[in-house]
Amino acid sequence: MKIGFLGGGRMGMAIAGRLLDHGHELFAWNRTRDKLAPLAQRGATVMNSPAEAAEGVDAVVSMLSDDDAVSRAALGAEDGAILGLSSGRVHVSMSTIGLRTVERLAREHEARRQRFVSAPVLGRPEAAQRGELVVLAAGLAEALDACAPIFEAVGKETHRFGDDPKRANVVKLLLNFVLASMLETLGEAFTLAERSGVRSDLLLDILDGAVFKSPMFAAYGHKIVRESFVPAGFDLALGVKDVRLLLEAGEAQALPMPVASVLRDRFLQAMALGLRDKDWSAVARARRSPPHAPAKIQDGGRT
Amino acid sequence: MKIGFLGGGRMGMAIAGRLLDHGHELFAWNRTRDKLAPLAQRGATVMNSPAEAAEGVDAVVSMLSDDDAVSRAALGAEDGAILGLSSGRVHVSMSTIGLRTVERLAREHEARRQRFVSAPVLGRPEAAQRGELVVLAAGLAEALDACAPIFEAVGKETHRFGDDPKRANVVKLLLNFVLASMLETLGEAFTLAERSGVRSDLLLDILDGAVFKSPMFAAYGHKIVRESFVPAGFDLALGVKDVRLLLEAGEAQALPMPVASVLRDRFLQAMALGLRDKDWSAVARARRSPPHAPAKIQDGGRT
Amino acid sequence: MKIGFLGGGRMGMAIAGRLLDHGHELFAWNRTRDKLAPLAQRGATVMNSPAEAAEGVDAVVSMLSDDDAVSRAALGAEDGAILGLSSGRVHVSMSTIGLRTVERLAREHEARRQRFVSAPVLGRPEAAQRGELVVLAAGLAEALDACAPIFEAVGKETHRFGDDPKRANVVKLLLNFVLASMLETLGEAFTLAERSGVRSDLLLDILDGAVFKSPMFAAYGHKIVRESFVPAGFDLALGVKDVRLLLEAGEAQALPMPVASVLRDRFLQAMALGLRDKDWSAVARARRSPPHAPAKIQDGGRT
Amino acid sequence: MKIGFLGGGRMGMAIAGRLLDHGHELFAWNRTRDKLAPLAQRGATVMNSPAEAAEGVDAVVSMLSDDDAVSRAALGAEDGAILGLSSGRVHVSMSTIGLRTVERLAREHEARRQRFVSAPVLGRPEAAQRGELVVLAAGLAEALDACAPIFEAVGKETHRFGDDPKRANVVKLLLNFVLASMLETLGEAFTLAERSGVRSDLLLDILDGAVFKSPMFAAYGHKIVRESFVPAGFDLALGVKDVRLLLEAGEAQALPMPVASVLRDRFLQAMALGLRDKDWSAVARARRSPPHAPAKIQDGGRT
Repeated sequence: MKIGFLGGGRMGMAIAGRLLDHGHELFAWNRTRDKLAPLAQRGATVMNSPAEAAEGVDAVVSMLSDDDAVSRAALGAEDGAILGLSSGRVHVSMSTIGLRTVERLAREHEARRQRFVSAPVLGRPEAAQRGELVVLAAGLAEALDACAPIFEAVGKETHRFGDDPKRANVVKLLLNFVLASMLETLGEAFTLAERSGVRSDLLLDILDGAVFKSPMFAAYGHKIVRESFVPAGFDLALGVKDVRLLLEAGEAQALPMPVASVLRDRFLQAMALGLRDKDWSAVARARRSPPHAPAKIQDGGRT
Repeated sequence: MKIGFLGGGRMGMAIAGRLLDHGHELFAWNRTRDKLAPLAQRGATVMNSPAEAAEGVDAVVSMLSDDDAVSRAALGAEDGAILGLSSGRVHVSMSTIGLRTVERLAREHEARRQRFVSAPVLGRPEAAQRGELVVLAAGLAEALDACAPIFEAVGKETHRFGDDPKRANVVKLLLNFVLASMLETLGEAFTLAERSGVRSDLLLDILDGAVFKSPMFAAYGHKIVRESFVPAGFDLALGVKDVRLLLEAGEAQALPMPVASVLRDRFLQAMALGLRDKDWSAVARARRSPPHAPAKIQDGGRT
Repeated sequence: MKIGFLGGGRMGMAIAGRLLDHGHELFAWNRTRDKLAPLAQRGATVMNSPAEAAEGVDAVVSMLSDDDAVSRAALGAEDGAILGLSSGRVHVSMSTIGLRTVERLAREHEARRQRFVSAPVLGRPEAAQRGELVVLAAGLAEALDACAPIFEAVGKETHRFGDDPKRANVVKLLLNFVLASMLETLGEAFTLAERSGVRSDLLLDILDGAVFKSPMFAAYGHKIVRESFVPAGFDLALGVKDVRLLLEAGEAQALPMPVASVLRDRFLQAMALGLRDKDWSAVARARRSPPHAPAKIQDGGRT
Repeated sequence: MKIGFLGGGRMGMAIAGRLLDHGHELFAWNRTRDKLAPLAQRGATVMNSPAEAAEGVDAVVSMLSDDDAVSRAALGAEDGAILGLSSGRVHVSMSTIGLRTVERLAREHEARRQRFVSAPVLGRPEAAQRGELVVLAAGLAEALDACAPIFEAVGKETHRFGDDPKRANVVKLLLNFVLASMLETLGEAFTLAERSGVRSDLLLDILDGAVFKSPMFAAYGHKIVRESFVPAGFDLALGVKDVRLLLEAGEAQALPMPVASVLRDRFLQAMALGLRDKDWSAVARARRSPPHAPAKIQDGGRT
């Protein structure tokens, strides 16, 4: 396929690399042009604007940092991709963005008889490089079918959620919500354990080994126990954004989400403590009120 | 070993059965004597009071419903086990009770030169019958050593947390806390998914299959998706009690636990809705505010 | 003064009426032109667009329903007031809008060498008709001075908060926050009182008579006790908006505001219950979990 | 009246002083006997035990620090007041204690054909000295009538809440709840104001002057603005206790109280920061997350 590609961050580069691996022809644009050099060396054509990158291609893929960046690149009045894309062709947004932005993108592309697919992904850049993302896709069935080669290049599995592109984003935001809730819950649990004299690694052994048996609990649990928040797999500042987008999605359905509200407050506290560039699991250690009577931690372990 | 046994509930009967399986001699007491008939048929001696059950044994095991029941059976001024137990012998409390009660038990047994071990367990009665509980134990090392045959009879693994008996209970309460947080989080997530037009079973497929890969998420997730809360594996009313005991443990360390506070409020809401005898995963469905604009749920699935 | 006026809601009409009372010359615009008839009868000129209303006047006053309405009327690319306003003249925004909108308004007016003043007001339309609003104003000192005749027409007092227009809005949002917190707190208190068998009007008597001695507590307290939420002094839907804007203001300072988060969840619950057009004090009665054991309410009273 | 008096704290001494002023005959007991010297000088008889203080009197008044202290003094197996009080006589508990304790006191006194009245009071020791407390009383009507001379000595008004003594305590706990909610709300509001560049005293001026017009808002607002938390009018540690008792009262009715849960967490944070002896308004300043970008605070004020 001829593919326009918008974005040059870590995730974007990994996805673009996979598309080249699979033999697609790439027309890439990024606000900071230099970042695209590795793609150019592998044969991608570097373009001057989103509109140019979208001209004549079968699909434009965007993987940008936030709602504003996607809106500008796609809908910018001067040089947005929407101005270049041919009728009937698809814009596939793979960023984790909010429902209002998705709705606006869908509406404006439709007004030009273009198609819009939302396909946020699950997984880190390293997984993307290996083509092992999980793709969450929603949009008109034939548009999703047209994007299948793209999804196959980057993902090990694709889940489809029907016509309405927003639904893919709801799912992505909810997955991040459940993860963030785990982080905060472990933070509260480990802190109480330690203040009560229990080693948090022993608690984690049981939590994971005997209760959840989940590689996700194990991986994040160890990060938190060891306070190993650098390098960030997922920036805490992105977590703040995702919690906000989730709360907006809840507000659109008039649904109170008290755990999400707790997460919001904790992420803000972590931001105020200067942790924005740390891994988002650092929320589990956002300075909690100091112990008034630190307990002596005893040894122990499995017998 | 000669073992006094206090309790006749489902968990108590399963544990007592294992002790008989392992050849221990049992002197059993329960407030409702009839419940002990199955033990008597297998050779246990049914006693008239906790004090009698404790006389001349190596250890007294208690598995009773709550703090009050344990306090009365162990410390009752008329016929508590403490009156019968010999100096140097052990009271092993296996119930999930609060730290203040544990502290009081430890203090009063010590005052009579008896030993106290707290050893709450992880697992359902069915697991107990198979000897597959996880035992969380704390107390003086030699007292724990003396109880090893008991722990071996009921558990597949034992974790030790040092001298202070309270620590075993902190761990047990924290495990239940992390589970309860998962229940509430899934409840919020599934509700928003459905209101946004996403089938909650599809969300669960991804949550478990691609993210957590945890049998615990899968099992509880399906209960919640199907609203299958009967029979109760763990009564919601017991969940209320455990959240309260956890909050007390947090208060003792002056530690705010906002997720635990959210759980408290949700469990109370569920109680008010008459769900006390349902499985505690029913908190995930405690009637949330009704949808103002129910979305049409679309088909979808993995491709 | 020659004043352009944007808006035709209840509050807008009351303010515009005051400006006419004080002898100002009004050039009024509203999206629904008919609503302005009463002003036209009193001598105001009805204009076709915000841009026209802003032409040649000393100041444009806007009193519109929300951030979008203000943004469009002020900055609309086709006919926004910004296109008509002369250099050096002032746009006075009196709506309760968010900080980001205020910032954008300030930036864009400044870029055209116009001035921007934010001056949200405190009080109901009835107070506005009597010129008894409280004006919260921020902007450059000389722009504030230029607006003094406007503020005098509508308000009994004006408070100034310095150069940065956003600050007036922070103050307005905070005042509404403290009021909304009172509503939720009274709701929780009255509900527990009644379930415990205490008449909520007796509780209110003491709360107001012996503790707060505040006409605000008395007025809202009686609305809640009597469940008298119609007609709405302030629509619940506007309360939702203001809580959202407040949380955004908190997020901009990385400040967790747990009470505001509780309010958000309660207002959403009330929206889901269909109370959007009721007085915002109805949040105090958003259906709470039903009583499991309603207490008999006893008589009582002051002796 | 012949009155037994249990307690020697600041509030107890003030109340006892008033009873002497009104010509009652006092038989006083306190755990620390020395504290009663000022009463003895004024003619009170100092007794050796609560039981002795209760012998032969018309009523026993208790004003002690917490549930434990009241339970021990009233019901102590060795020398509790219950052992000395004659049949038909009254125990009037004026402490702010929890519903379970009140229920137990009522039950045990009734079992001995004694009467129990709960009559917590509103006001500081200074108000007590002037006889200006507000008395919240519940119990059997004839018992309340019998206590009228006591209430008249200490209070400027008495409110009766029917037969069930617990109701007086619910009211007292709710009044403290509404006050504590005000403290936390002001804390959140002032913090956001300051971070946004608004002087909190200017915000308070409007909050109180134009909105609430309440001496309570003014008094506490100024304490918080000035961070004037010493001397404590009401110890923060007592606030922790009262929030806990309130949450227990809510739990007894299966009523979620999310604002009370927020208060619990904030009070614990304040305790962890070592503020237990400060005025409870210090919760409003329990170290919040530090500002990431402190705004320059501008001048301003009313014009």
